[in-house]
Order: sequence, then structure tokens, then C-alpha cells
Amino acid sequence: MKSLLLKNVILARKNTDIRIRNGQFEKIAQNLTPEDGEDLFHANGTLAILPAFYNAHTHAAMTLMRGYADDLELFRWLSEMIWPLEAQLTPEDVYNGSRLAILEMIRSGTVFFNDMYWFQKQTVRAAEEMGIRACIGLLQLSNGNDNTDNEWLKENRNSFSSRIQTALAPHAIYTVDTETLRKTGEIASGQNALIHIHLAETKKEFDDCINQHNMTPVQYLDTLGLLTPRTILAHSIYLTEDDIKLIAKRNSITVHMPASNMKLASGRFPGETILKHHSRIALGTDGACSNNNLSMIEEMKLAALLAKLGSENPETFPAPLVYDMASRRGAEAFGLHAGVIQEGYLADAILVDLNTPTMTPDFHTISNMVYAADPSVIDSVICDGKFLMKHRVIDGEQEILAAARESAHKLVERLKKC
Amino acid sequence: MKSLLLKNVILARKNTDIRIRNGQFEKIAQNLTPEDGEDLFHANGTLAILPAFYNAHTHAAMTLMRGYADDLELFRWLSEMIWPLEAQLTPEDVYNGSRLAILEMIRSGTVFFNDMYWFQKQTVRAAEEMGIRACIGLLQLSNGNDNTDNEWLKENRNSFSSRIQTALAPHAIYTVDTETLRKTGEIASGQNALIHIHLAETKKEFDDCINQHNMTPVQYLDTLGLLTPRTILAHSIYLTEDDIKLIAKRNSITVHMPASNMKLASGRFPGETILKHHSRIALGTDGACSNNNLSMIEEMKLAALLAKLGSENPETFPAPLVYDMASRRGAEAFGLHAGVIQEGYLADAILVDLNTPTMTPDFHTISNMVYAADPSVIDSVICDGKFLMKHRVIDGEQEILAAARESAHKLVERLKKC
Repeated sequence: MKSLLLKNVILARKNTDIRIRNGQFEKIAQNLTPEDGEDLFHANGTLAILPAFYNAHTHAAMTLMRGYADDLELFRWLSEMIWPLEAQLTPEDVYNGSRLAILEMIRSGTVFFNDMYWFQKQTVRAAEEMGIRACIGLLQLSNGNDNTDNEWLKENRNSFSSRIQTALAPHAIYTVDTETLRKTGEIASGQNALIHIHLAETKKEFDDCINQHNMTPVQYLDTLGLLTPRTILAHSIYLTEDDIKLIAKRNSITVHMPASNMKLASGRFPGETILKHHSRIALGTDGACSNNNLSMIEEMKLAALLAKLGSENPETFPAPLVYDMASRRGAEAFGLHAGVIQEGYLADAILVDLNTPTMTPDFHTISNMVYAADPSVIDSVICDGKFLMKHRVIDGEQEILAAARESAHKLVERLKKC
Repeated sequence: MKSLLLKNVILARKNTDIRIRNGQFEKIAQNLTPEDGEDLFHANGTLAILPAFYNAHTHAAMTLMRGYADDLELFRWLSEMIWPLEAQLTPEDVYNGSRLAILEMIRSGTVFFNDMYWFQKQTVRAAEEMGIRACIGLLQLSNGNDNTDNEWLKENRNSFSSRIQTALAPHAIYTVDTETLRKTGEIASGQNALIHIHLAETKKEFDDCINQHNMTPVQYLDTLGLLTPRTILAHSIYLTEDDIKLIAKRNSITVHMPASNMKLASGRFPGETILKHHSRIALGTDGACSNNNLSMIEEMKLAALLAKLGSENPETFPAPLVYDMASRRGAEAFGLHAGVIQEGYLADAILVDLNTPTMTPDFHTISNMVYAADPSVIDSVICDGKFLMKHRVIDGEQEILAAARESAHKLVERLKKC
């Protein structure tokens, strides 16, 4: 396979060259000599190479509903606005929404997303076409609509590129019945599968679980065999300290999504306590309806700021830690040897333009990325050894925007006709 | 004076033309005919015109220290890191830091900033050169260093452009003695002057004031004649409900800075209660050391999100309200008839590229601006009828970045030699 040589990038404040081959960082050293026929990229000493981002929980196609319903109480938001619109979604909508999401993710430096939604074939199609990594959930909803491509996913997952994986994805403990959850636990155990579930997002979910099962949501999940080292717990807000100890013991992964939790007034993720018990944390954006963007840069800042205010301690969640949650720790949760710019790691990276206002001065590049930057500082994005964006250009961007705009328009028109 | 005609911009979802003359929106209508010699700008129906932002509290030149010291406890942060570095500042540093700040502000759609810092002549110089509006504080600090240009400001303020105004700026009640504060109140009353002060930022400030004066910070300020309809109260976190009623009665302006308040773990601005008593709120970024950027777009999102989480009500601080705080309400606090795109208002505006991922789809442009956008969606910025940025180009950007980088580097080198 053809190799790629990055000339003169800044890594840990020093200029260096990096050779990428077979989707990995093969060699990092100064003054590497280009090989015959090798692709060359000149960073000219102004682009810093940094780990890319791994979005541990989202609903990509919800970008189509961005800004459609904001500033509403949670139940009204869902039942009056979001669910009726979602009922009108077609496979083509999910394709166009997924492409819009991937476009936005690439622009903001994200190379992987963990998705839970309907018509998953379309999200796989979009991810394969655009070169991003993804984990696609086999959605389970006891009383939801049946617009899933679960069977297709099961039949075809061995034909996907190495960038695409799947997870068992029971939606939540309040939307999937106990028997189905228990069976999912058994299947997961047999296949060593990833499990992706919303957990303990609201006070109501916690209280209802106590009332119905006489257990906390975390305890309930554990009795069903669903708390494993490959379980991704989206939200994880309402946890007791014993819950946190149990999550740590089982080595499951909590996913923090500060924007969504704040916007929906769900509550505050108990980050300091989770860290105290050495439990695992990744970051996610949630879907674009409750955020309303997919920028992991913004999510890092929110995570750091909210932890400081909530714990009344400005030393909590320092910038290097939240960057690690958004990159290496996220990648690791999905079994990816990535999120670190070192030989032998997967060749995923962002190239950041230091010659921009928010990256100036450059006392601490990571602090600037977490607290000052916005997606516009990202010049280029590499995933699996290939450029997804080069010098801010993403192939097909205008067509993707136009198709998403049309899908969103038609979606609302269909709803009006109901 | 030469007029400027904006052709085919989107205003309130409709295409229109806008003629700007003498720094005001003169005529807004469809199909305006260009006049002889008039400047023309073609928006081609893809740029929305929206109010620009008014940053109600910052310390512009602190951009030079961006990322220098983060994730530290407040007192250690100030006494060990920030103050020693600030003691090394030269007028040239403040000039270069102010230019970097203004560059960043223009890129993020800000056309006015309310500043409190040293060597103010340099900030005036930078603002005049770059065409932005500013209010420059006559800094009072009973025990601070005397690197102010207060006398120069007093002598020269009548020669400034109409974009520059000044305020009396006692730093805070804990850094300025009672007699000086009282005199400032008298001077302000005589001149109908703007007053700009940090107030009730920390629990300690509140408790100390009660202990020393047997009054809350707000009550104390009122007894000194400093609570007026032209008083800008930066932070305003630790307020009793009676304080809020008093602020409302005096018609003073509170400035909310969620990023800084969260990053330093200062506390939460009581926004819902302030709104309940119909009191005035503007938004600010604070300096780049405690934020660490100057983006009012990010500040709007943080304000909305933090209010929702803190009040446990997702309907609090809806997008149109926070946009109004960041624009019209901020402008009004400083006596500017601006922040609205209507005939007769000051010709300040941003032109937003709707053909971008975060502005797609366009169900609610303001929701997208508050919850989804980042500064990269801003194509052009108009202040006082002139372009500060046109199609993302700001004159002299590279030179400003290079000068700021050099100033920051030398500043730290000087400190090391101490």
C-alpha cells in the first residue's frame, strides 16, 4: 500500500516528519527521505499534529432536525416535536442527515462516532463513502417503530471496511423490557460484543427504576449481565457512589455529554467521583437536536468548565485530561489503538493551524485547543492513514449541504400533511 | 459620505437590499438601484444579515497570556501566575495584545468591547486603527501598579472617533478604598459618566463586604452613589433578591460571563431572578486568561445552557433572548442605538454564511447561531458602516499574529530574568 509522508509537522513543540503506511504511524523522525511514489504533505512548520476526536455517543442523522425545536421542556420536546418528525424519516433522509453529520464531524476533527439510530444501512453507507470510522448500533426498542436495518447489519457486518464496527444497542432501560435486556446480555457475553445504552440520564429514570426494580439503573443493568468492559453507558448522570464503584469494578465506560445534559436540564455528570474511583470516561456530543452541534472541541470545554463549577474546584478536569477523554480514552473504549501520535498507533490525526488568533500565543497547545479554539483552527484531518479533509477542503461538501437542506425541508412538509 | 449598498442579503428569511450611509442603515428594501459611485457588496442570497455582538466586559490585552496558566485555584492563579506576568507588561505589549484581541473579536462578529486594563492609550490606538468600537476604562486601583494612561485619556477623549468612549473604572470594591469610590460616584454623577466595575464575583467578596461594611456589595455600591443607569456591573454573581430589586430600581446593568465564572469556579449568575425583576443583562467574555477566547457566540451558548441546567428548566434563557443580550441589550447599555437591523440604527452587522454545516438546515437562524455555530460561519463584519472583515479577510492579520506572538514570548522571557 502506498505510504504518505508528512513533512515538517509540529509534534510536542518540535518539527518532525511522519511516515504513514497501512493505516498506521510507521515512523516518526526528523528529515525522513521521501520514498519513490510516496504521497507528500508539506506542513511547513505551521501545522501541529494532534490526536483526532472519538465521539462516544451520537445520533448522526438528527442533524436534519437541528434547530427545529429548542428551549422546550424535555417531554414536550420529545413527544410533540421530535418523535412526530422522526416518524416521517425515510432511509434517504438518514443518509443525507448522516452525511451532514459526518461533514460537520470531519470539519471539527472527529474521526469516529458511536451511533444509535434507525435505517442504519444509510449511516454505514455514508461513513464508508466519507472514510470516517463508526460504531453502528443494533437498535432495540420494545415499543418503538421498526425502521431498523438490524438484520441487514448482522448479515453484512463482515463485509464492512475495518473502520466500521457494530454494537448491541438497547435504547434504554425504560424503553426495552427486562427479558429483551437479559437476552441481549447473553448474546453480548457469547460474542464479546460492544453494548451501547442510554443510562441514568434523568432523575425520573432513576426514581422509576428504584420503584419498579428496587435497584438503581446501574444495579439493574448488572443483574441482567449488561455491565461489561465493553459496555458504553451514555449520560451516566444519576449514579450513587456504589454505582460508580460497580461500574469501576466491571470496567464499563461512562460517556459524558455536557452540552446535551445542560440544554435539556438533565443534570450534572459526577465526573470527579468517577475519576476518584478510577473509572473510565469518554466524551460525546449526543445528537444535534439536543446540543446542537457535533463539535468535540466545544464538548471538551464544556466538560472542563462544568466540572470546575460543579465541584467548586478550578483544578478539576484540567485541559490535558479532557483532551485525553475526547481522544485516546474514547478510542480505547471501542478497542481502537488510537488517539496517540506515536509509531504503531492507528494513523488518525488532526493538523491544527497555529497561525490563527485563538491558537496565539502558543504557551500550551492543548490548553488552547480545549479553552480557546473552535473548529476553524483545524486545517486537515487524517483517518486510517487517509485525508478526510485537506487544507479545509472536503470533497463533495456543497452537494452534501444541498441534499441535507432538501431532506430537512421535505421532512417537515410530510409532517404538515399528516 | 460615500454610501454602501448590500445587494441580496437575507433578513428575517427574506432577500433584500440595504443601503448604509453615514454609519447608519438608511434604507432597507428590495431592488434598490445602485447610486453613482456607491460601493456595492453582493451577498448573492446566501448570507444572512444579523446583529453584531457587543462584548460588555473584557481585558483585551490579556490575549497575550492566553493558555499561560490554566486549571489553577483562583488565588494561586492570580498571585503566582497572572500578576507577576502583568507586572512585566509594556505599552507595546498592550498594543499587540489589544490588536490580537480585536482580530479575534472581529472574526467572531464582535463590533464593540468594554475594556478595563492598563496602558489604555495602546488599546485606543489599536481600536482606532482596526475600526472597532470600544469603551475604555479610566482604571482605579488603590494598591495596583500605576501603569495607567488615565490622564492621557481625560485630555484626549474629545479627539477620539465617535466609536470610542470612556468609563470611570474602579476595579472592584475590594481593591479601591471607600473614599476613592465615593469620589468616583460624585464625578460620575456630575458628568453622567459610565461606571464600569467588577462586582460580587466571588463568595469571599460578598462575605468580606458584609463583615467590613455590614452591607452586601450592591448595597455598599449604592450608598457610595455608584449604582446608576450607566453602571456596568461585571459578574454580579453573589446577589440577594433584595440586591436584584435594588439593581432593577437603579436600572443598572449586570454583565454575565459564564465561561469565566465556570472556569474559575466563581459561581452561577442568578439570571432567572434578574429577569424576573426586569433587570438588565448584557453578556461579556472576560479576558482571554479566564475564558480563554473572546467569542460571544460561545458565550451565548454557555449562558443559555448554564441557565437551563442551574434552574432545572430547559425553557429558561431561550436562544432569541440570549442573542438579544449579546447584541441589542449590550449596545443599549453603552448608549448605542444598535444591535437591530432596522432603518435608523447604527450600521453594525454580521453577514453569516448559511451554506455551512452548522447553519444547515435553517429552521431557526438564531437557534443555529446560539447553539450550533462557531465563528467560522461569519463571512463578513460591518461596524459603523464599514467592513472590518470582508469574506473572511481582515487586513494585516498575519502581521498582528506575528507581533502578538513575539510580544508574548518576550514578556515571559522578561519574567524569567526577574
